Amino acid sequence: MKPLDALQQSLHKRVLVELRGGRSFRGLLDAFDQHLNLVLSSAEEVVNDVVTPHPGLTLLRGDSVVYISP
Amino acid sequence: MKPLDALQQSLHKRVLVELRGGRSFRGLLDAFDQHLNLVLSSAEEVVNDVVTPHPGLTLLRGDSVVYISP
Amino acid sequence: MKPLDALQQSLHKRVLVELRGGRSFRGLLDAFDQHLNLVLSSAEEVVNDVVTPHPGLTLLRGDSVVYISP
Amino acid sequence: MKPLDALQQSLHKRVLVELRGGRSFRGLLDAFDQHLNLVLSSAEEVVNDVVTPHPGLTLLRGDSVVYISP
Amino acid sequence: MKPLDALQQSLHKRVLVELRGGRSFRGLLDAFDQHLNLVLSSAEEVVNDVVTPHPGLTLLRGDSVVYISP
Amino acid sequence: MKPLDALQQSLHKRVLVELRGGRSFRGLLDAFDQHLNLVLSSAEEVVNDVVTPHPGLTLLRGDSVVYISP
Amino acid sequence: MKPLDALQQSLHKRVLVELRGGRSFRGLLDAFDQHLNLVLSSAEEVVNDVVTPHPGLTLLRGDSVVYISP
Repeated sequence: MKPLDALQQSLHKRVLVELRGGRSFRGLLDAFDQHLNLVLSSAEEVVNDVVTPHPGLTLLRGDSVVYISP
Repeated sequence: MKPLDALQQSLHKRVLVELRGGRSFRGLLDAFDQHLNLVLSSAEEVVNDVVTPHPGLTLLRGDSVVYISP
Repeated sequence: MKPLDALQQSLHKRVLVELRGGRSFRGLLDAFDQHLNLVLSSAEEVVNDVVTPHPGLTLLRGDSVVYISP
Repeated sequence: MKPLDALQQSLHKRVLVELRGGRSFRGLLDAFDQHLNLVLSSAEEVVNDVVTPHPGLTLLRGDSVVYISP
Repeated sequence: MKPLDALQQSLHKRVLVELRGGRSFRGLLDAFDQHLNLVLSSAEEVVNDVVTPHPGLTLLRGDSVVYISP
Repeated sequence: MKPLDALQQSLHKRVLVELRGGRSFRGLLDAFDQHLNLVLSSAEEVVNDVVTPHPGLTLLRGDSVVYISP
Repeated sequence: MKPLDALQQSLHKRVLVELRGGRSFRGLLDAFDQHLNLVLSSAEEVVNDVVTPHPGLTLLRGDSVVYISP
Protein backbone atom coordinates (compact mmCIF):
# COMPACT_ATOMS: atom_id res chain seq x y z
CA MET A 1 0.00 0.00 0.00
CA LYS A 2 1.16 3.52 -0.81
CA PRO A 3 0.14 6.59 1.24
CA LEU A 4 -2.30 7.86 -1.38
CA ASP A 5 -4.05 4.47 -1.36
CA ALA A 6 -4.91 5.13 2.27
CA LEU A 7 -6.43 8.44 1.22
CA GLN A 8 -8.47 6.61 -1.40
CA GLN A 9 -10.12 4.68 1.47
CA SER A 10 -11.24 7.99 3.00
CA LEU A 11 -12.93 9.21 -0.18
CA HIS A 12 -16.52 10.37 0.47
CA LYS A 13 -15.99 9.97 4.22
CA ARG A 14 -15.51 12.62 6.90
CA VAL A 15 -11.90 13.64 7.46
CA LEU A 16 -9.98 16.00 9.71
CA VAL A 17 -7.36 18.03 7.84
CA GLU A 18 -4.75 19.89 9.85
CA LEU A 19 -3.17 22.81 7.97
CA ARG A 20 -0.10 24.87 8.82
CA GLY A 21 -0.62 27.91 10.97
CA GLY A 22 -3.11 26.48 13.45
CA ARG A 23 -6.00 26.02 11.02
CA SER A 24 -7.98 22.81 10.56
CA PHE A 25 -10.92 21.63 8.48
CA ARG A 26 -13.50 18.88 8.90
CA GLY A 27 -15.63 17.73 5.98
CA LEU A 28 -16.39 15.04 3.43
CA LEU A 29 -13.40 14.23 1.21
CA ASP A 30 -14.70 14.59 -2.35
CA ALA A 31 -11.43 14.61 -4.28
CA PHE A 32 -7.65 14.67 -3.96
CA ASP A 33 -4.59 14.58 -6.19
CA GLN A 34 -0.94 13.56 -5.79
CA HIS A 35 0.01 17.02 -4.45
CA LEU A 36 -2.53 16.46 -1.63
CA ASN A 37 -4.74 19.22 -2.97
CA LEU A 38 -8.08 18.25 -1.40
CA VAL A 39 -11.74 19.04 -2.01
CA LEU A 40 -14.05 18.93 1.00
CA SER A 41 -17.83 19.33 1.02
CA SER A 42 -19.96 20.34 4.03
CA ALA A 43 -16.76 21.63 5.57
CA GLU A 44 -16.13 23.43 8.84
CA GLU A 45 -12.98 25.46 9.46
CA VAL A 46 -11.58 25.72 12.99
CA VAL A 47 -9.08 28.40 14.04
CA ASN A 48 -8.50 29.03 17.75
CA ASP A 49 -11.76 27.20 18.61
CA VAL A 50 -13.75 29.47 16.28
CA VAL A 51 -15.81 27.33 13.85
CA THR A 52 -16.72 28.71 10.39
CA PRO A 53 -18.98 26.66 8.11
CA HIS A 54 -18.06 26.48 4.41
CA PRO A 55 -21.06 25.34 2.34
CA GLY A 56 -20.30 23.98 -1.14
CA LEU A 57 -16.90 22.68 -2.22
CA THR A 58 -13.73 23.93 -0.51
CA LEU A 59 -10.38 23.39 -2.21
CA LEU A 60 -7.44 23.07 0.20
CA ARG A 61 -3.98 23.57 -1.30
CA GLY A 62 -1.78 20.54 -0.65
CA ASP A 63 1.21 22.68 0.32
CA SER A 64 -0.60 23.74 3.49
CA VAL A 65 -1.60 20.25 4.61
CA VAL A 66 0.14 18.76 7.68
CA TYR A 67 -1.98 15.62 8.13
CA ILE A 68 -5.27 14.01 7.15
CA SER A 69 -7.07 11.77 9.62
CA PRO A 70 -10.52 10.12 9.82
CA MET B 1 -13.34 14.24 -9.96
CA LYS B 2 -9.98 15.89 -9.40
CA PRO B 3 -9.49 18.98 -7.18
CA LEU B 4 -9.07 21.34 -10.12
CA ASP B 5 -12.39 20.12 -11.55
CA ALA B 6 -14.03 21.49 -8.42
CA LEU B 7 -12.39 24.82 -9.10
CA GLN B 8 -13.75 24.71 -12.65
CA GLN B 9 -17.27 24.68 -11.12
CA SER B 10 -16.47 27.97 -9.34
CA LEU B 11 -15.39 29.75 -12.51
CA HIS B 12 -17.15 33.11 -12.95
CA LYS B 13 -18.69 32.77 -9.48
CA ARG B 14 -17.80 34.57 -6.26
CA VAL B 15 -15.12 32.85 -4.19
CA LEU B 16 -13.33 33.41 -0.90
CA VAL B 17 -9.57 32.91 -1.14
CA GLU B 18 -7.57 32.60 2.04
CA LEU B 19 -3.88 33.46 1.63
CA ARG B 20 -0.96 32.89 3.99
CA GLY B 21 -0.23 35.63 6.49
CA GLY B 22 -3.78 36.50 7.49
CA ARG B 23 -4.86 37.97 4.15
CA SER B 24 -8.00 36.99 2.25
CA PHE B 25 -9.73 38.00 -0.98
CA ARG B 26 -13.32 37.84 -2.19
CA GLY B 27 -14.16 38.23 -5.86
CA LEU B 28 -15.30 36.62 -9.10
CA LEU B 29 -13.01 33.80 -10.21
CA ASP B 30 -12.08 34.66 -13.79
CA ALA B 31 -9.18 32.27 -14.36
CA PHE B 32 -6.91 29.73 -12.69
CA ASP B 33 -4.09 27.36 -13.62
CA GLN B 34 -2.64 24.16 -12.20
CA HIS B 35 -0.35 26.10 -9.82
CA LEU B 36 -3.51 27.66 -8.32
CA ASN B 37 -2.53 31.07 -9.65
CA LEU B 38 -5.92 32.81 -9.68
CA VAL B 39 -7.45 35.85 -11.35
CA LEU B 40 -10.25 37.61 -9.49
CA SER B 41 -12.39 40.51 -10.74
CA SER B 42 -14.35 42.94 -8.54
CA ALA B 43 -12.15 41.79 -5.69
CA GLU B 44 -11.99 42.92 -2.09
CA GLU B 45 -8.94 42.25 0.10
CA VAL B 46 -9.40 41.76 3.85
CA VAL B 47 -6.53 42.05 6.34
CA ASN B 48 -7.33 42.41 10.04
CA ASP B 49 -10.95 43.40 9.21
CA VAL B 50 -9.73 46.23 6.94
CA VAL B 51 -11.37 45.92 3.50
CA THR B 52 -9.58 47.25 0.39
CA PRO B 53 -11.36 47.15 -2.98
CA HIS B 54 -9.32 46.08 -6.02
CA PRO B 55 -11.06 47.17 -9.25
CA GLY B 56 -10.00 45.39 -12.45
CA LEU B 57 -8.24 42.01 -12.51
CA THR B 58 -6.17 40.87 -9.52
CA LEU B 59 -3.69 38.03 -9.98
CA LEU B 60 -3.08 35.97 -6.83
CA ARG B 61 0.05 33.81 -6.82
CA GLY B 62 -0.81 30.17 -6.18
CA ASP B 63 2.05 29.72 -3.71
CA SER B 64 0.26 32.00 -1.25
CA VAL B 65 -3.13 30.25 -1.45
CA VAL B 66 -4.32 28.24 1.58
CA TYR B 67 -7.89 27.48 0.46
CA ILE B 68 -10.58 28.51 -2.01
CA SER B 69 -14.20 28.35 -0.96
CA PRO B 70 -17.54 29.58 -2.45
CA MET C 1 21.75 0.92 2.08
CA LYS C 2 19.77 4.00 1.14
CA PRO C 3 17.75 6.03 3.70
CA LEU C 4 14.39 4.72 2.47
CA ASP C 5 15.65 1.15 2.96
CA ALA C 6 15.97 1.96 6.66
CA LEU C 7 12.36 3.08 6.64
CA GLN C 8 11.40 -0.21 4.98
CA GLN C 9 12.72 -1.96 8.12
CA SER C 10 10.29 0.05 10.25
CA LEU C 11 7.25 -0.96 8.21
CA HIS C 12 4.43 -2.31 10.41
CA LYS C 13 6.38 -1.34 13.54
CA ARG C 14 5.84 1.54 15.96
CA VAL C 15 7.59 4.76 15.00
CA LEU C 16 7.97 8.26 16.41
CA VAL C 17 7.52 10.97 13.78
CA GLU C 18 8.61 14.51 14.63
CA LEU C 19 6.90 17.16 12.51
CA ARG C 20 7.70 20.84 12.12
CA GLY C 21 6.05 23.21 14.53
CA GLY C 22 6.38 21.16 17.71
CA ARG C 23 4.01 18.36 16.73
CA SER C 24 4.82 14.66 16.88
CA PHE C 25 3.04 11.38 16.17
CA ARG C 26 3.48 7.83 17.42
CA GLY C 27 1.90 4.90 15.62
CA LEU C 28 2.35 1.85 13.41
CA LEU C 29 3.99 2.69 10.08
CA ASP C 30 1.65 1.24 7.46
CA ALA C 31 2.98 2.91 4.32
CA PHE C 32 5.43 5.50 3.00
CA ASP C 33 6.60 6.87 -0.32
CA GLN C 34 9.75 8.61 -1.61
CA HIS C 35 8.42 12.05 -0.52
CA LEU C 36 8.24 10.68 3.07
CA ASN C 37 4.46 10.89 3.03
CA LEU C 38 3.60 8.41 5.78
CA VAL C 39 0.54 6.43 6.86
CA LEU C 40 0.25 5.59 10.55
CA SER C 41 -2.38 3.41 12.21
CA SER C 42 -3.33 3.49 15.91
CA ALA C 43 -1.67 6.87 16.04
CA GLU C 44 -1.34 9.37 18.87
CA GLU C 45 -0.53 13.03 18.25
CA VAL C 46 1.44 15.00 20.85
CA VAL C 47 1.52 18.80 20.94
CA ASN C 48 2.78 20.54 24.10
CA ASP C 49 2.32 17.30 26.10
CA VAL C 50 -1.34 17.06 25.05
CA VAL C 51 -2.02 13.61 23.56
CA THR C 52 -4.79 13.16 20.95
CA PRO C 53 -5.62 9.65 19.69
CA HIS C 54 -6.24 9.23 15.95
CA PRO C 55 -8.09 5.95 15.27
CA GLY C 56 -7.93 4.64 11.71
CA LEU C 57 -5.28 5.65 9.18
CA THR C 58 -3.54 9.02 9.46
CA LEU C 59 -1.68 10.40 6.45
CA LEU C 60 1.25 12.68 7.35
CA ARG C 61 2.54 14.92 4.57
CA GLY C 62 6.26 14.33 3.96
CA ASP C 63 6.99 18.06 3.73
CA SER C 64 6.26 18.41 7.44
CA VAL C 65 8.46 15.53 8.60
CA VAL C 66 11.68 16.34 10.49
CA TYR C 67 12.69 12.81 11.54
CA ILE C 68 11.37 9.26 11.94
CA SER C 69 12.68 7.09 14.74
CA PRO C 70 11.71 3.70 16.26
CA MET D 1 -8.19 32.86 -20.25
CA LYS D 2 -5.23 31.78 -18.14
CA PRO D 3 -3.87 33.84 -15.22
CA LEU D 4 -0.82 35.01 -17.13
CA ASP D 5 -3.08 36.31 -19.92
CA ALA D 6 -4.57 38.69 -17.36
CA LEU D 7 -1.07 39.90 -16.58
CA GLN D 8 -0.50 40.46 -20.29
CA GLN D 9 -3.35 42.99 -20.17
CA SER D 10 -1.49 44.95 -17.48
CA LEU D 11 1.71 45.23 -19.52
CA HIS D 12 2.96 48.84 -19.73
CA LYS D 13 0.30 49.93 -17.23
CA ARG D 14 0.65 50.86 -13.57
CA VAL D 15 0.35 47.94 -11.17
CA LEU D 16 0.42 47.37 -7.43
CA VAL D 17 2.58 44.40 -6.41
CA GLU D 18 2.26 43.07 -2.89
CA LEU D 19 5.32 41.11 -1.73
CA ARG D 20 5.78 38.86 1.30
CA GLY D 21 6.94 40.54 4.47
CA GLY D 22 4.84 43.70 4.31
CA ARG D 23 6.56 45.23 1.28
CA SER D 24 4.77 46.53 -1.82
CA PHE D 25 5.72 48.20 -5.10
CA ARG D 26 3.88 50.46 -7.52
CA GLY D 27 5.17 51.03 -11.03
CA LEU D 28 4.78 50.39 -14.74
CA LEU D 29 4.85 46.68 -15.60
CA ASP D 30 7.53 46.38 -18.28
CA ALA D 31 8.04 42.60 -18.34
CA PHE D 32 7.09 39.35 -16.64
CA ASP D 33 7.71 35.62 -17.04
CA GLN D 34 5.94 32.44 -16.02
CA HIS D 35 7.62 32.44 -12.58
CA LEU D 36 6.01 35.88 -11.98
CA ASN D 37 9.42 37.53 -12.00
CA LEU D 38 8.43 41.13 -12.82
CA VAL D 39 10.17 44.24 -14.13
CA LEU D 40 8.75 47.59 -13.04
CA SER D 41 9.85 51.04 -14.23
CA SER D 42 9.27 54.32 -12.36
CA ALA D 43 8.68 52.21 -9.28
CA GLU D 44 7.98 53.19 -5.70
CA GLU D 45 8.51 50.80 -2.79
CA VAL D 46 6.30 51.05 0.29
CA VAL D 47 7.24 49.49 3.65
CA ASN D 48 5.38 50.60 6.78
CA ASP D 49 4.11 53.74 4.97
CA VAL D 50 7.69 54.76 4.05
CA VAL D 51 7.92 55.39 0.29
CA THR D 52 11.24 54.85 -1.56
CA PRO D 53 11.50 55.74 -5.25
CA HIS D 54 13.38 53.31 -7.52
CA PRO D 55 14.38 55.03 -10.78
CA GLY D 56 15.25 52.75 -13.71
CA LEU D 57 14.18 49.12 -13.95
CA THR D 58 13.47 47.10 -10.80
CA LEU D 59 13.36 43.31 -11.02
CA LEU D 60 11.06 41.66 -8.47
CA ARG D 61 11.62 37.95 -7.85
CA GLY D 62 8.42 35.98 -8.48
CA ASP D 63 8.87 33.89 -5.34
CA SER D 64 8.19 36.97 -3.21
CA VAL D 65 5.00 38.03 -5.02
CA VAL D 66 1.66 37.64 -3.22
CA TYR D 67 -0.60 39.45 -5.69
CA ILE D 68 -0.57 41.88 -8.63
CA SER D 69 -3.40 44.34 -9.03
CA PRO D 70 -4.06 47.40 -11.27
CA MET E 1 35.55 16.24 -5.22
CA LYS E 2 31.83 16.93 -4.97
CA PRO E 3 30.07 17.70 -1.65
CA LEU E 4 28.44 14.27 -1.43
CA ASP E 5 31.87 12.64 -1.82
CA ALA E 6 32.85 14.33 1.44
CA LEU E 7 29.78 12.77 3.05
CA GLN E 8 30.86 9.40 1.70
CA GLN E 9 34.04 9.76 3.82
CA SER E 10 31.89 10.14 6.95
CA LEU E 11 29.95 6.94 6.32
CA HIS E 12 29.90 4.67 9.39
CA LYS E 13 31.58 7.40 11.47
CA ARG E 14 30.12 9.69 14.11
CA VAL E 15 28.66 12.92 12.77
CA LEU E 16 26.98 16.02 14.16
CA VAL E 17 23.88 17.04 12.20
CA GLU E 18 22.42 20.49 12.79
CA LEU E 19 18.75 20.77 11.82
CA ARG E 20 16.56 23.84 11.43
CA GLY E 21 14.78 25.07 14.51
CA GLY E 22 17.56 24.57 17.06
CA ARG E 23 17.64 20.78 16.96
CA SER E 24 20.76 18.68 16.44
CA PHE E 25 21.65 15.00 16.30
CA ARG E 26 24.82 13.03 16.95
CA GLY E 27 25.20 9.47 15.75
CA LEU E 28 26.80 7.04 13.33
CA LEU E 29 26.06 7.88 9.70
CA ASP E 30 24.65 4.69 8.22
CA ALA E 31 23.20 5.98 4.94
CA PHE E 32 22.47 9.12 2.93
CA ASP E 33 21.05 10.07 -0.46
CA GLN E 34 21.36 13.05 -2.82
CA HIS E 35 18.54 14.91 -0.98
CA LEU E 36 20.66 14.69 2.20
CA ASN E 37 18.14 12.38 3.80
CA LEU E 38 20.30 10.70 6.45
CA VAL E 39 20.13 7.55 8.57
CA LEU E 40 21.87 7.65 11.96
CA SER E 41 22.32 4.78 14.39
CA SER E 42 23.01 5.11 18.13
CA ALA E 43 21.75 8.67 17.82
CA GLU E 44 21.25 11.36 20.42
CA GLU E 45 19.01 14.36 19.83
CA VAL E 46 19.83 17.69 21.49
CA VAL E 47 17.27 20.49 21.86
CA ASN E 48 18.01 23.33 24.31
CA ASP E 49 20.67 21.20 26.04
CA VAL E 50 18.15 18.38 26.63
CA VAL E 51 19.58 15.10 25.30
CA THR E 52 17.23 12.34 24.08
CA PRO E 53 18.68 8.97 23.02
CA HIS E 54 17.23 7.35 19.88
CA PRO E 55 18.09 3.64 19.78
CA GLY E 56 17.82 1.93 16.40
CA LEU E 57 17.87 3.74 13.08
CA THR E 58 16.73 7.37 12.87
CA LEU E 59 15.86 8.85 9.47
CA LEU E 60 16.45 12.61 9.22
CA ARG E 61 14.72 14.39 6.35
CA GLY E 62 17.23 16.24 4.18
CA ASP E 63 15.04 19.34 3.95
CA SER E 64 15.67 20.01 7.64
CA VAL E 65 19.45 19.66 7.50
CA VAL E 66 21.60 22.80 7.89
CA TYR E 67 25.04 21.18 8.13
CA ILE E 68 26.80 17.88 8.75
CA SER E 69 30.13 17.85 10.55
CA PRO E 70 32.42 15.16 12.04
CA MET F 1 11.54 41.88 -23.15
CA LYS F 2 11.80 39.23 -20.45
CA PRO F 3 12.75 40.01 -16.82
CA LEU F 4 16.25 38.59 -17.15
CA ASP F 5 16.87 40.86 -20.16
CA ALA F 6 16.40 43.80 -17.82
CA LEU F 7 19.04 42.31 -15.56
CA GLN F 8 21.35 42.02 -18.56
CA GLN F 9 21.17 45.83 -18.87
CA SER F 10 22.46 46.16 -15.28
CA LEU F 11 25.52 43.98 -15.90
CA HIS F 12 28.76 45.70 -14.77
CA LYS F 13 26.74 48.52 -13.20
CA ARG F 14 25.99 49.25 -9.54
CA VAL F 15 22.86 47.55 -8.21
CA LEU F 16 20.95 47.39 -4.96
CA VAL F 17 19.93 43.85 -4.00
CA GLU F 18 17.36 43.39 -1.27
CA LEU F 19 17.49 39.97 0.40
CA ARG F 20 15.03 38.30 2.76
CA GLY F 21 15.50 38.95 6.44
CA GLY F 22 16.31 42.66 6.30
CA ARG F 23 19.68 42.33 4.56
CA SER F 24 20.73 44.25 1.44
CA PHE F 25 23.80 44.52 -0.75
CA ARG F 26 25.17 47.22 -3.04
CA GLY F 27 27.84 46.46 -5.61
CA LEU F 28 28.76 45.96 -9.24
CA LEU F 29 26.76 43.17 -10.89
CA ASP F 30 29.38 40.89 -12.41
CA ALA F 31 27.28 37.82 -13.21
CA PHE F 32 23.82 36.28 -12.81
CA ASP F 33 21.97 33.13 -13.86
CA GLN F 34 18.33 32.15 -14.36
CA HIS F 35 17.92 31.28 -10.64
CA LEU F 36 18.90 34.90 -9.86
CA ASN F 37 22.12 33.74 -8.24
CA LEU F 38 24.20 36.93 -8.45
CA VAL F 39 27.86 37.87 -8.24
CA LEU F 40 28.71 41.33 -6.96
CA SER F 41 32.15 42.96 -6.79
CA SER F 42 33.13 45.88 -4.53
CA ALA F 43 30.07 45.02 -2.48
CA GLU F 44 28.73 46.50 0.75
CA GLU F 45 26.27 44.66 2.96
CA VAL F 46 23.74 46.61 5.00
CA VAL F 47 21.88 45.11 7.98
CA ASN F 48 20.09 47.46 10.40
CA ASP F 49 22.12 50.44 9.08
CA VAL F 50 25.42 48.62 9.79
CA VAL F 51 27.57 48.59 6.63
CA THR F 52 30.08 45.77 6.04
CA PRO F 53 32.41 45.93 3.04
CA HIS F 54 32.97 42.69 1.07
CA PRO F 55 36.11 42.98 -1.09
CA GLY F 56 36.42 40.48 -3.96
CA LEU F 57 33.48 38.61 -5.45
CA THR F 58 30.38 37.91 -3.37
CA LEU F 59 27.93 35.25 -4.53
CA LEU F 60 24.33 35.86 -3.46
CA ARG F 61 22.00 32.86 -3.61
CA GLY F 62 18.97 33.60 -5.81
CA ASP F 63 16.55 32.04 -3.31
CA SER F 64 17.22 34.89 -0.90
CA VAL F 65 16.70 37.71 -3.43
CA VAL F 66 13.57 39.89 -3.09
CA TYR F 67 14.39 42.54 -5.69
CA ILE F 68 17.25 44.02 -7.73
CA SER F 69 17.26 47.71 -8.52
CA PRO F 70 19.78 50.21 -10.02
CA MET G 1 31.04 34.48 -16.45
CA LYS G 2 28.31 32.61 -14.59
CA PRO G 3 27.87 32.83 -10.79
CA LEU G 4 29.29 29.35 -10.17
CA ASP G 5 32.42 30.32 -12.11
CA ALA G 6 33.04 32.95 -9.45
CA LEU G 7 32.79 30.24 -6.83
CA GLN G 8 35.30 28.18 -8.77
CA GLN G 9 37.81 31.02 -8.18
CA SER G 10 37.33 30.65 -4.41
CA LEU G 11 38.07 26.93 -4.40
CA HIS G 12 40.73 26.01 -1.81
CA LYS G 13 40.63 29.56 -0.42
CA ARG G 14 39.09 30.90 2.78
CA VAL G 15 35.46 31.94 2.45
CA LEU G 16 32.76 33.42 4.65
CA VAL G 17 29.40 31.67 4.29
CA GLU G 18 26.32 33.34 5.72
CA LEU G 19 23.47 30.92 6.43
CA ARG G 20 19.83 31.62 7.26
CA GLY G 21 18.98 32.09 10.89
CA GLY G 22 21.98 34.15 11.96
CA ARG G 23 24.60 31.45 11.54
CA SER G 24 27.83 31.84 9.57
CA PHE G 25 30.88 29.73 8.77
CA ARG G 26 34.47 30.55 7.86
CA GLY G 27 36.73 27.95 6.32
CA LEU G 28 38.54 26.65 3.25
CA LEU G 29 36.18 25.89 0.37
CA ASP G 30 36.98 22.32 -0.62
CA ALA G 31 34.00 21.51 -2.84
CA PHE G 32 30.65 22.82 -4.10
CA ASP G 33 27.88 21.74 -6.48
CA GLN G 34 25.19 23.53 -8.49
CA HIS G 35 22.79 23.47 -5.49
CA LEU G 36 25.42 25.46 -3.54
CA ASN G 37 26.00 22.54 -1.21
CA LEU G 38 29.47 23.39 0.12
CA VAL G 39 32.29 21.53 1.85
CA LEU G 40 34.53 23.55 4.16
CA SER G 41 37.67 22.36 5.94
CA SER G 42 39.22 23.97 9.04
CA ALA G 43 35.86 25.63 9.58
CA GLU G 44 34.63 27.87 12.37
CA GLU G 45 30.92 28.43 13.04
CA VAL G 46 29.74 31.75 14.44
CA VAL G 47 26.34 32.21 16.09
CA ASN G 48 25.72 35.32 18.20
CA ASP G 49 29.50 35.95 18.46
CA VAL G 50 30.05 32.43 19.84
CA VAL G 51 32.73 30.66 17.77
CA THR G 52 32.73 26.84 17.46
CA PRO G 53 35.58 25.10 15.61
CA HIS G 54 34.65 22.23 13.27
CA PRO G 55 37.73 20.10 12.50
CA GLY G 56 37.54 17.87 9.43
CA LEU G 57 35.11 18.41 6.57
CA THR G 58 31.81 20.22 7.15
CA LEU G 59 29.04 19.91 4.58
CA LEU G 60 26.73 22.92 4.41
CA ARG G 61 23.37 22.38 2.71
CA GLY G 62 22.89 24.81 -0.18
CA ASP G 63 19.29 25.56 0.81
CA SER G 64 20.54 27.35 3.92
CA VAL G 65 23.13 29.53 2.14
CA VAL G 66 22.45 33.28 1.84
CA TYR G 67 25.81 34.41 0.46
CA ILE G 68 29.43 33.34 0.01
CA SER G 69 32.19 35.92 0.20
CA PRO G 70 36.03 35.84 0.36
